[in-house]
Amino acid sequence: MDTNAFFEDLLTRTRLDGRYRTFAQLERIAGAFPRARWHRPDGGSQEVTVWCSNDYLGMGQHPEVLAAMHETIARSGAGTGGTRNISGTVREHVALEQELAGLHGKEAALLFTSGWISNLAALGTLGRLLPDCAIFSDALNHNSMIEGIRRSGAERFIFRHNDVAHLEELLGSVDPARPKIIAFESVYSMDGDVAPIAAICDLADRYGAITYLDEVHAVGMYGSHGGGIAEREGLADRISIIEGTLAKAFGVIGGYVAGPALLIDVIRSFAESFIFTTSLCPHLAAGALAAVRHLRQSGGERSLQQAAVARLKAALAAEGLPVARGSASHIVPLMVGDAHLCRAISTALLEEHGIYVQPINYPTVPVGQERLRITPTPFHDEGHIRKLVSALVSIRARVGWGEPKKAAA
Amino acid sequence: MDTNAFFEDLLTRTRLDGRYRTFAQLERIAGAFPRARWHRPDGGSQEVTVWCSNDYLGMGQHPEVLAAMHETIARSGAGTGGTRNISGTVREHVALEQELAGLHGKEAALLFTSGWISNLAALGTLGRLLPDCAIFSDALNHNSMIEGIRRSGAERFIFRHNDVAHLEELLGSVDPARPKIIAFESVYSMDGDVAPIAAICDLADRYGAITYLDEVHAVGMYGSHGGGIAEREGLADRISIIEGTLAKAFGVIGGYVAGPALLIDVIRSFAESFIFTTSLCPHLAAGALAAVRHLRQSGGERSLQQAAVARLKAALAAEGLPVARGSASHIVPLMVGDAHLCRAISTALLEEHGIYVQPINYPTVPVGQERLRITPTPFHDEGHIRKLVSALVSIRARVGWGEPKKAAA
Ligand SMILES: Cc1ncc(COP(=O)(O)O)c(C=O)c1O
Ligand SMILES: Cc1ncc(COP(=O)(O)O)c(C=O)c1O
Repeated sequence: MDTNAFFEDLLTRTRLDGRYRTFAQLERIAGAFPRARWHRPDGGSQEVTVWCSNDYLGMGQHPEVLAAMHETIARSGAGTGGTRNISGTVREHVALEQELAGLHGKEAALLFTSGWISNLAALGTLGRLLPDCAIFSDALNHNSMIEGIRRSGAERFIFRHNDVAHLEELLGSVDPARPKIIAFESVYSMDGDVAPIAAICDLADRYGAITYLDEVHAVGMYGSHGGGIAEREGLADRISIIEGTLAKAFGVIGGYVAGPALLIDVIRSFAESFIFTTSLCPHLAAGALAAVRHLRQSGGERSLQQAAVARLKAALAAEGLPVARGSASHIVPLMVGDAHLCRAISTALLEEHGIYVQPINYPTVPVGQERLRITPTPFHDEGHIRKLVSALVSIRARVGWGEPKKAAA
Repeated sequence: MDTNAFFEDLLTRTRLDGRYRTFAQLERIAGAFPRARWHRPDGGSQEVTVWCSNDYLGMGQHPEVLAAMHETIARSGAGTGGTRNISGTVREHVALEQELAGLHGKEAALLFTSGWISNLAALGTLGRLLPDCAIFSDALNHNSMIEGIRRSGAERFIFRHNDVAHLEELLGSVDPARPKIIAFESVYSMDGDVAPIAAICDLADRYGAITYLDEVHAVGMYGSHGGGIAEREGLADRISIIEGTLAKAFGVIGGYVAGPALLIDVIRSFAESFIFTTSLCPHLAAGALAAVRHLRQSGGERSLQQAAVARLKAALAAEGLPVARGSASHIVPLMVGDAHLCRAISTALLEEHGIYVQPINYPTVPVGQERLRITPTPFHDEGHIRKLVSALVSIRARVGWGEPKKAAA
């Protein structure tokens, strides 16, 4: 077989579908967020305003975070030089794990090199070890949870997105003696809607299921200490395992799970994707620890972010721009519904207005649900919002966009 | 089912088998490597000599690496705040990918958050996309390659470790029209032996297979520019894809693949484990770039390391300590053959002699092949070696170890 011809053809079809990805090359500017330098393909560069960062609270430039990183690099160097088991456990890991357990009111926590790996490791391991396990998974769960469930080999039952009645139907269809896990997210990353956590916990109690909640898009941002939606709704103690990232609101990189000491020890002891990889650098754990500590006692970033979100949503609505109706969070999806059009709007924003919002196409969202996913932060002020909305209005006047082909989820 | 009782029992059995892992808590000391501070379980702490780090060349404390990291944090902050596609591609990624492609004489390279993810993403994607692909995998391949192959869903053919005749037999048994990948390592991480790369490339040519070489334990350390064993043996251009890590000889964290632009673009475009995760922090890419650049032009670290390896192997042999015969690299496995004994020797080294060598037990090595895996670096001098060998000799006198129960691989 001519593998080159096969792959060439695959990429050509991706290009024709408007799904071929080109990465905008940025240079972040500490202290100037959300401004960044965009390095254009022509070799030149210019400053732009970033409206699609998941550094949701700007903690990636917070002086306490950067100071902790500098200090730890000076003291301990760069990498750990080992897996957690083989010379790669450092004090900073232990301190951060304790802090994260505390944040979520759990007995223990375990660090990973990313949120993606946390989900693969945790779901993959629990679902694999529990004999004849059944995993109930929300239809819009993130790829990393899907990969974990697949890796577990457990039987998977997909319930319609946020549909508690469907979940109950599926739970009822399974032998009561089988071990069960319900896996879902709090804030869904592409629609910004929020799960009915209490109702799902009620079902988990009734059917004896472990609850596994991905709070990647909520930790740091909701609850009075940044413990996520579960904290805000007083439900954290009803969730068995909370999974989070250190790479979004906490501004650094890495992921974690927090839960009962027993389950965390099982993941630690048996997850290959945790065992067989170099551990997180000491200074990354130190930087994340500074971010978590700061956001546990400071609510200022959260209020400023929520104010910016409300202002942006109102300004878009006032212009009749198609914000997805379901968004109940800081994630503001502007529906487009076509891959080529989505890319064209994004390009016009960047090249004509110096505004960067990446087009979100398949496979990140289903075909027909292409969108611009806008994420206001505490650092997006009135002026940024005015410029974004007027740029969108002027582009709409030209490309005739505004009614998505398909309704938003 | 009582899942708690089930998991308690699982951990109890692991403890009884001597396989329950406790992580030694360290504090790295930049500038003092291989010395580190060990935080004892009793709350006290003491300095120890680390003999099991994969910071093989001490680049994790190299001034150029640390300076690049400090400078980039000051300029660009902590995380990228996005996936590569969504605001998370920074200049440092592009520069490092170009440097790594150059290091291996390849058209392109792609960064990942770890070497583990590189293997999962690359093998998982190529094997999944190529219709009816057959993957030929060395029996001792690392867990991350095994996970990639499993994830691909491709049919897997396992050849006996480094056994070219067996590989040929398996290649010949498969329809010539099927796409094929041969996946193997250059330096095997637990035995330190080296693959017959030229002979495997001959077979790949004959049977039209893509070659995929994991050089995680060789990049930075072999070849006149640190391009790995393939560079040393003048074979890099016969390997389709070289996979490496930034977390061992390069001293930081992260992983990569280097290869033809087409294959790299396919992995970039289709690997979910690459697409759906936050990208490497700018300063990590900058630090790794400094390490790669330094080791491309400096051979001093490599010569010093190799001298330390030769000295240690000679000193162990002189005392009749059971070094695995196959080691042809910087990895020096001292065979023990029993999990409890292995842990006991390691504990005695640490508690009585201030020497840290983690016991390597199942699942990292097969049961019966438990060992101490010793890794000399340029910073392990005559004095360190003398102390290690005399400590081992005195412990042997007490515990009666020296003849492994089973022969080493
Ligand atoms: C819901 C969800 N879970 C997990 C992840 C993975 O987190 P990380 O970026 O830390 O790998 C993401 C996105 O990246 C996500 O959107
Ligand atoms: C052969 C091999 N490949 C890949 C990896 C994974 O690399 P990383 O530690 O960067 O995840 C390791 C060990 O960690 C390894 O030994």
